[in-house]
Amino acid sequence: MKITMAHGSGGKSTSDLIGTIFEKEFGDPVLSKMEDSAVLPGAGRIALTTDSFVVTPVFFPGGDIGRLCVCGTVNDLLMSGAVPKYLTCGFILEEGAETDDLRKIARSMSETAKEAGVRIVAGDTKVVEGSGGVYINTAGVGFVPDGIDIGAENCREGDAILISGNLGDHHAAVMSRRMGIENTIVSDCAPLVEMVNAMKQSGVHIHAMRDVTRGGLGTVLNEFASSSGCTIELEEESLPVSEQVRGFCGVLGLDPLYMGNEGKMVAAVAAEDAERAVACIRASRYGENAAVIGHVATGERILLLKTPIGGTRVVGPLYGEGLPRIC
Amino acid sequence: MKITMAHGSGGKSTSDLIGTIFEKEFGDPVLSKMEDSAVLPGAGRIALTTDSFVVTPVFFPGGDIGRLCVCGTVNDLLMSGAVPKYLTCGFILEEGAETDDLRKIARSMSETAKEAGVRIVAGDTKVVEGSGGVYINTAGVGFVPDGIDIGAENCREGDAILISGNLGDHHAAVMSRRMGIENTIVSDCAPLVEMVNAMKQSGVHIHAMRDVTRGGLGTVLNEFASSSGCTIELEEESLPVSEQVRGFCGVLGLDPLYMGNEGKMVAAVAAEDAERAVACIRASRYGENAAVIGHVATGERILLLKTPIGGTRVVGPLYGEGLPRIC
Repeated sequence: MKITMAHGSGGKSTSDLIGTIFEKEFGDPVLSKMEDSAVLPGAGRIALTTDSFVVTPVFFPGGDIGRLCVCGTVNDLLMSGAVPKYLTCGFILEEGAETDDLRKIARSMSETAKEAGVRIVAGDTKVVEGSGGVYINTAGVGFVPDGIDIGAENCREGDAILISGNLGDHHAAVMSRRMGIENTIVSDCAPLVEMVNAMKQSGVHIHAMRDVTRGGLGTVLNEFASSSGCTIELEEESLPVSEQVRGFCGVLGLDPLYMGNEGKMVAAVAAEDAERAVACIRASRYGENAAVIGHVATGERILLLKTPIGGTRVVGPLYGEGLPRIC
Repeated sequence: MKITMAHGSGGKSTSDLIGTIFEKEFGDPVLSKMEDSAVLPGAGRIALTTDSFVVTPVFFPGGDIGRLCVCGTVNDLLMSGAVPKYLTCGFILEEGAETDDLRKIARSMSETAKEAGVRIVAGDTKVVEGSGGVYINTAGVGFVPDGIDIGAENCREGDAILISGNLGDHHAAVMSRRMGIENTIVSDCAPLVEMVNAMKQSGVHIHAMRDVTRGGLGTVLNEFASSSGCTIELEEESLPVSEQVRGFCGVLGLDPLYMGNEGKMVAAVAAEDAERAVACIRASRYGENAAVIGHVATGERILLLKTPIGGTRVVGPLYGEGLPRIC
């Protein structure tokens, strides 16, 4: 079988590839959890994650590959309940890449790392033939405080499902730039440190958290349903999508449920904490449009969407390509 | 300025790029140490490293990109004095890559990780356009025992310089395969856990260690000289190079001092421990040709090579390209 762009979508094809090759060959139980960070015993508990970034173009409205790679890795650590601490960065540069661009990207990484409170402590640079492209891998280490146990398998009946803001901004911004469409949509690319800290500090019982990236909300909530053995029910009306992105999706036939974001998280929290959690996120940077969008119910391991006209439909994970090279 | 293949050589151009862009923009003091792993305070001390692998072809005599990426990262952790524990892997696949090849690579990673005693605990997969290429980033975490302080800056006058075996095998194997030259040279690609543990357990005072990869021994020992403020003197006669590689170098005009290896280390150890250290390495897997090859002297920060006919020449770090995509 040959690799296709669909294997990079973050949806069904990606998880099939991981399941049939990487997970199978590597055989470490922590990989089967399919969380974004592995939480590991060490001196204390550490969280460890990795992500490669191949977004094109590398500069896009609202961000660049540098800000993206730091946010992506910081957010993955945060979602496991860890306090992000250290990042490594591995550059794979195509011949002909501009050092001026590289400097801008490095500066953007540095600024974002400062904002997120992490240190970039190790790096590597390789050069391959090509036409000036830039790929960056960032791996991250965080420390997990005692007593934290956050994971998709912990969703339970009655939990509220929260989203930290509007869906689809990053996807629409990158796609607009690539297609030369003029609009004012900008990527949501951001580190979510402040909102997660606010929830933790106010004592919200967070059962599961995930940043909503490649594959979109539909794919993440299918993972929640599958891991926890529950049904997730969403209210379509409550899903926050900006008017511009609604228009963009309407014209191009896109579904915000499968669009990638780079500064949004979804969480399952104890029902009694839901309003407080939303208030914490709304008071934080990047969280002004947070909302409760559904809840966890008993039933099959599926994601259900209740439509405004009283319908209910099953929402699967992303199949096929999605937008190639969105992150 | 545009990126050229020389920026990926591991020599002077690579360190210029890192110095003028990445180190400058990221500004973390631990980066300026230019060691292969950052040793960081945490709960205890952890070592953190990253490496991307872009070798072509991905299968070569004596190994493949999978074995290579695990060895490279494990060895980088070992060289900082850490006990390697966890690896992450980020795959960047070009469209058209064969899943059968990917399975072989994953199996090779898994087997090498087992041999080295590390766990692969997190991963990521991206797909880009292209023609079936495979890039892998591996980041690694290790724990650094109390009392360990190994670094290029710790070389001191009188220290013996040891090499763990023959120079140039990986370079010659990859180059032979790429050029279609038939010979029996195989890559030395190997994890150096056993020899490092043996030295530690026998109480050898290791001041500096480095695996000899891209850029070769000449580049590594220039870094030792530069960081420690000493002169390193090598005896050319004592450098172990197999007969086949000697022949290969003779024909192609290559210098083993600048050839990449993937299972060799160089160390500066206290003079009184030198013979014991060599005995430890020789008794270990992959260490049968270990030798003392020189010593640390006072003087300028340079690397000197004493030739068999009584000459002395200054050996600089690698300039220019080296062999592109050797690792």
